[in-house]
Amino acid sequence: MADIGFIGLGNMGGPMASNLLAAGYRVKVFDLVQERLDLLASKGGDAVESPSEAVRGAEFCISMLPASAHVRGLYLESARDAALIDQIDPTTLVIDCSTIAPYAAREVAAAASARGIDMLDAPVSGGTAGAEAGTLTFIVGGDAAALERARPLLEAMGANIFHAGVSGAGQVGKICNNMLLAILMTGTAEALSLGVANGLDPARLSSIMRDSSGGNWALEKYNPWPGVMDGVPASRGYSGGFLTDLMIKDLGLAMEASAATGKGVPMGSLALSLYRMHREQLDAGGLDFSSIQRLYGSGSGVSGG
Amino acid sequence: MADIGFIGLGNMGGPMASNLLAAGYRVKVFDLVQERLDLLASKGGDAVESPSEAVRGAEFCISMLPASAHVRGLYLESARDAALIDQIDPTTLVIDCSTIAPYAAREVAAAASARGIDMLDAPVSGGTAGAEAGTLTFIVGGDAAALERARPLLEAMGANIFHAGVSGAGQVGKICNNMLLAILMTGTAEALSLGVANGLDPARLSSIMRDSSGGNWALEKYNPWPGVMDGVPASRGYSGGFLTDLMIKDLGLAMEASAATGKGVPMGSLALSLYRMHREQLDAGGLDFSSIQRLYGSGSGVSGG
Amino acid sequence: MADIGFIGLGNMGGPMASNLLAAGYRVKVFDLVQERLDLLASKGGDAVESPSEAVRGAEFCISMLPASAHVRGLYLESARDAALIDQIDPTTLVIDCSTIAPYAAREVAAAASARGIDMLDAPVSGGTAGAEAGTLTFIVGGDAAALERARPLLEAMGANIFHAGVSGAGQVGKICNNMLLAILMTGTAEALSLGVANGLDPARLSSIMRDSSGGNWALEKYNPWPGVMDGVPASRGYSGGFLTDLMIKDLGLAMEASAATGKGVPMGSLALSLYRMHREQLDAGGLDFSSIQRLYGSGSGVSGG
Amino acid sequence: MADIGFIGLGNMGGPMASNLLAAGYRVKVFDLVQERLDLLASKGGDAVESPSEAVRGAEFCISMLPASAHVRGLYLESARDAALIDQIDPTTLVIDCSTIAPYAAREVAAAASARGIDMLDAPVSGGTAGAEAGTLTFIVGGDAAALERARPLLEAMGANIFHAGVSGAGQVGKICNNMLLAILMTGTAEALSLGVANGLDPARLSSIMRDSSGGNWALEKYNPWPGVMDGVPASRGYSGGFLTDLMIKDLGLAMEASAATGKGVPMGSLALSLYRMHREQLDAGGLDFSSIQRLYGSGSGVSGG
Repeated sequence: MADIGFIGLGNMGGPMASNLLAAGYRVKVFDLVQERLDLLASKGGDAVESPSEAVRGAEFCISMLPASAHVRGLYLESARDAALIDQIDPTTLVIDCSTIAPYAAREVAAAASARGIDMLDAPVSGGTAGAEAGTLTFIVGGDAAALERARPLLEAMGANIFHAGVSGAGQVGKICNNMLLAILMTGTAEALSLGVANGLDPARLSSIMRDSSGGNWALEKYNPWPGVMDGVPASRGYSGGFLTDLMIKDLGLAMEASAATGKGVPMGSLALSLYRMHREQLDAGGLDFSSIQRLYGSGSGVSGG
Repeated sequence: MADIGFIGLGNMGGPMASNLLAAGYRVKVFDLVQERLDLLASKGGDAVESPSEAVRGAEFCISMLPASAHVRGLYLESARDAALIDQIDPTTLVIDCSTIAPYAAREVAAAASARGIDMLDAPVSGGTAGAEAGTLTFIVGGDAAALERARPLLEAMGANIFHAGVSGAGQVGKICNNMLLAILMTGTAEALSLGVANGLDPARLSSIMRDSSGGNWALEKYNPWPGVMDGVPASRGYSGGFLTDLMIKDLGLAMEASAATGKGVPMGSLALSLYRMHREQLDAGGLDFSSIQRLYGSGSGVSGG
Repeated sequence: MADIGFIGLGNMGGPMASNLLAAGYRVKVFDLVQERLDLLASKGGDAVESPSEAVRGAEFCISMLPASAHVRGLYLESARDAALIDQIDPTTLVIDCSTIAPYAAREVAAAASARGIDMLDAPVSGGTAGAEAGTLTFIVGGDAAALERARPLLEAMGANIFHAGVSGAGQVGKICNNMLLAILMTGTAEALSLGVANGLDPARLSSIMRDSSGGNWALEKYNPWPGVMDGVPASRGYSGGFLTDLMIKDLGLAMEASAATGKGVPMGSLALSLYRMHREQLDAGGLDFSSIQRLYGSGSGVSGG
Repeated sequence: MADIGFIGLGNMGGPMASNLLAAGYRVKVFDLVQERLDLLASKGGDAVESPSEAVRGAEFCISMLPASAHVRGLYLESARDAALIDQIDPTTLVIDCSTIAPYAAREVAAAASARGIDMLDAPVSGGTAGAEAGTLTFIVGGDAAALERARPLLEAMGANIFHAGVSGAGQVGKICNNMLLAILMTGTAEALSLGVANGLDPARLSSIMRDSSGGNWALEKYNPWPGVMDGVPASRGYSGGFLTDLMIKDLGLAMEASAATGKGVPMGSLALSLYRMHREQLDAGGLDFSSIQRLYGSGSGVSGG
C-alpha cells in the first residue's frame, strides 16, 4: 500500500488518518499537538516532526486544517528553507480536505500546478461521526484522473465521493451545500415552531412534511425538535454533531463566495444572522446546529412523543 | 356507492370530482360557472342548480373553493332561507378541501358540530397535475373516525392521506408544509445561483446537494434550474405547475398563523417578500413558483446540460 | 365650547379626554371600566352609561379603542336597538383616533357617509407621554373641511396635525411611519452593536451617525443604547415608552397593508420577525421598543459614558 | 503653507487635492493615470512620477485609493527598494482617506507606528459632490493630537470632522454609518412604496414621516421617490450621487466587520442582498443608491407632484 503523509490530526483529521491505517496504508502523521501524534502512533502511524518529513517520499499528501490561512500557511509560506509546496515531489498527489475559501484553494492548486504537482480540494461533510465511521462525503475539485488516483484513499475514509469540477469546485460545492443545509434546517425549525404554536404535534407534523413537498434532509435524518427522532443531537440536548460555530464558519465562506461574485444570497444571509444571534443569545456556539430550534422558543420540555 | 355533493369545480375541484365519478360514485355537482357544470355532466355528474340541492340526501359533502371568505360564505351565510350548514343532514360528512385560514376552518367546523355534523378540513397538495392523476396529498384535520369514513373517497382522489389532528389542523399542516416548501425552493435556487456564479455546473451541483445534507424535495422532484431535470416547469419556461400567485396566497396564510400566535417566522417572511418582488419585477404571478430562480438572475438560456 | 362624546378612556384616551376638559370643552365620557370613568368625572367629565348617551346631542364624537374589531364593533354592530352609527346625528363629526387597519377605517367611514355623517380617521403617535402632555401627532384621513372643523380639538390634544388624504389615509400614514420607525430603530441598534463590537464608544458613534447620513429620529430623540441619552427608556431599563407589544401590533397592520396590495416589504417583515423573537427570547413585550438593542447582545451594564 | 504629498487623484481624490491647492497648500500629486496628473498640474499641483517622490520632504502624506488591497500595496509592499512606509520621514503625518477594512487600516497604522510615524485613517462621506464643494465629512481614527495637526487640511476639504477613536476607528465609524444609511434608505423606499400602493401621495407621506418618528436623513436630504425633492438623484433618473456599486462595496466591509466579531447584522445583510438583486435585476450598479426605490416597483413616471 501507498505511503501517505497526513498533516492535521484534529477531531476530523485524526479519525480519517486512523481509517487509512486501518485500511492498511502506511501513514506518516504530523500535528503540532503531541498527544494527537501519540494517539495516531498508537494506532500504527509513523509520527514525524515536520510537514517536510511527512511528505518526503510520499505518494499522497493529505491535509486537514481549520481554515484558509492555515492551508496557505502550510503550503505557500516558508518553513525552514522553502515553502512546503516546493519540497513536495511532482509525483506526489496532494489532497487538501480542509474547508476553505475557493480562492485560497485555487491559489494553492495553482502553486502546485506550477511545479507539476496534481492537487485536489476535497472538503468533507459528515462531521466527526462520519470521520470515525469512515462514512464521510467528499466533494472534490480538480483533475478527474487525479480523483481516480485518489479514490481508493477517499473510499477508505468516506462513503460518497462527488466530482464537482476543476480546482476550487470542491470548496464551492461544499459551501453551497452547507448554505442550503443551514437554510433548510432553519426553515424546518421555523415550520415546526409555527405548527406547534398553532396546536400541532411536532412528530406528526414532521412526518407529514417529510413525506410531502416540504421533505428535506433535516426531516429525514436530523430532526431538530427534541424527542421526535432517536439518536440525533436534538434528543440529547443538542450535544455533539455539527457545531453552530462550524456552521457559522461555513456560512462565512458562503458570504465570501457571494461577495466575490456579487451574487445576492438573502436566505443564506438571514440564516447566518439567525445563527449568530442564536450563538449570542443562547450561548449556542458549542451546540449542534439543529439547536437553532431553540431560537424559535421551543426545544425545552416540549416532547414530540 | 355513496351519494356525494361536490361544490366547486375549478382547476382542482373539477378533476377531483371527475376522479370520484370514475371510481363509481354518484356525484351531484355544483359550480357558478355553467361550462364547468357541463363538463362534469358530460362525465356522468348530476349537475344541480344550488349548493342546497347538491347536499340534499348526500352521504358526503365535498367543497373546493378559493379562500376563507368563500368557505365561510358557502356554509355560514344565508342562501335563500338558511345557511347551508343548517340545511345539511347530521348524517352527512362534510369535507372541505379548500386551503383556508385555520381559524376559518375551526369556525365552520364548530358551526357544523353544533348541529351534530362531522366535518373535516382536508386541504390538498399536488397541484392540478395531482388532481388530474388522482395522486393528491390530503392533510386532514378533524375526528379520526370521520377520517376513516372519508378515506375511500380521499383515496379515489389522492395517493397520500395524513391525519394532522383536530379541526383546523389540516390547514395548519398544509400551511407549515408550504411555507417550508417556499423556503427550500428559494434556498435551492439561491444555492444553485451561488454555485453557478462560482463556476459550477448546475446539474452536477444539483446532484451533489441532492445526495448530501442539502437534499430536499426541490432537488429530488422539481429542480428550479432550466434543463437540469426533464418534465418539470423549469424545463418548459416555468409554465404550468404551482403558480407563484398561489404560493404567495399560502405564504399569506402562514403570516396570518404567525400573527395569530405571535411566533416569528423570519425565513418564511423573507421568502414571501422575495416572491412578491419576483412577481412585481418579473411579472411572474402566473409562472410556476420554481421560477424564483429567475430572481437570482439565472434561468434564461443557461442550461445545465 | 362644543359638546364632545368621548369613548375609550384607557392609557391614551384618558389623558386625551383630560386635555379636552382642561381646554374648556364639555365632554361626555364612556368606558367599560368604572374606575376610568370615575377618574375622568373627577376632572369634570360627564360620565355616561353607554356610547349612545355619549354621542347624543354631541357636536363631536371621539373614539380611542385598541384594534379594528373594537372600532367595527362600536360603530357597526347593534347595541340595544341599532348600530351606534345609526344613532349619531348627521351634524356630529366623528373622529376615530384608534390605530386600526385601513380597510376597517374605510368601512366605518363609508357607513358614516351613507348616513351623511363626516368621519375622520386620526391615529396618533407620541405614546402615553405625548397624550398626557398634549403633544401628540395626529395623522388624519378624510375630508379637508372636516379636518378644519376638528382642528381646535386636535390642537387641544396634540402638537402636530397632518392631513394624509381621504378616509383610511390616516391609518396608512401611521402604519407606514411606524414600519419605518421599526426599521430605523432596529437598524440603529444594529449599527451601534456592530460599532461597539469593533471597539467604538457608543456615545461617540451615536453622535457621528446622527450628524452624518445615518441620521434619524432614534439617534436624535430616542437612542437605544443605555446611558447615551438622558431621559429615554434605554436609560431606565427600557421601562415606559412605546411598548414592544404595540410595535408588533403596528407592524402586523403593515403586513396586512402589504398583503392587501401584494407589495413586498422585506425590511419591515424582518423587523417584525426580530421583534417577535425579541419578545419571545427576552420576554420583552412589556419593554419599550428600543429594547431591541438587547437582542443584539448589548444593553446591560455597558455604558456609553 | 505646508508641503503635502497626495496619492490617488480619482473622482474623490482629484477634487480633494484641488481644494488643498485652492487653499494655498503646496501639493505634490501622484496617480497612475497621466490625464489626472495633468489636470491637477493645470491647477497648480506639482506632478511627480512616483509615490516616493510625492512623500519626499512632505509634512503631510494623503492617500485616497479604492480598496484595502491598494492601501496595503501602496504603503507595505516594496516599490523599488523599499516599502513606502519605510521611505516616509517620521515627521510626516500620514492621512489615508480611503474607505477600507478596519483591520487593514490598523495593519498599516501599526507599520507606521513601528517607524515612529503618526497615521490617521480618515474616510469620508459626501460623495463626489462633497469632494468638489469641499463639504466632505471626515470620520477619523488615530491619535487626537495628530488629528489636531491635520485639522487645517481636513477643513480645506470638508465641513465636518469627527474623531471616532484609535487607529481603525474611522473606518469602523464610516462602515457603521453607511450600513445604517443603506438600511434607512431601503426602509424609506419600502415605506413610500407601501404607502403609495395603499393610495397615499408620495410627497405628502414623505413630509409626514420626515416630521414624525420615521424622520431620517433620506427624507430630509435625499428623498428616493422621483419628483418629491428637487436636485436629488431621484429627480434626474438616479444619475450621479453615491453609486449602488459603492454602497455594495461599503456593505461588504460591514459584513467583514460582522464576520470579524461574530456580531449578527440581519438588517444590514438584507439591505446588501436587496442591493445586489437590484444591481442584477435592474442593471443598477452605476445608478445612485437611492434607485433602490425601483426594486419596489416604483420610480418611473410616478410623480409626487
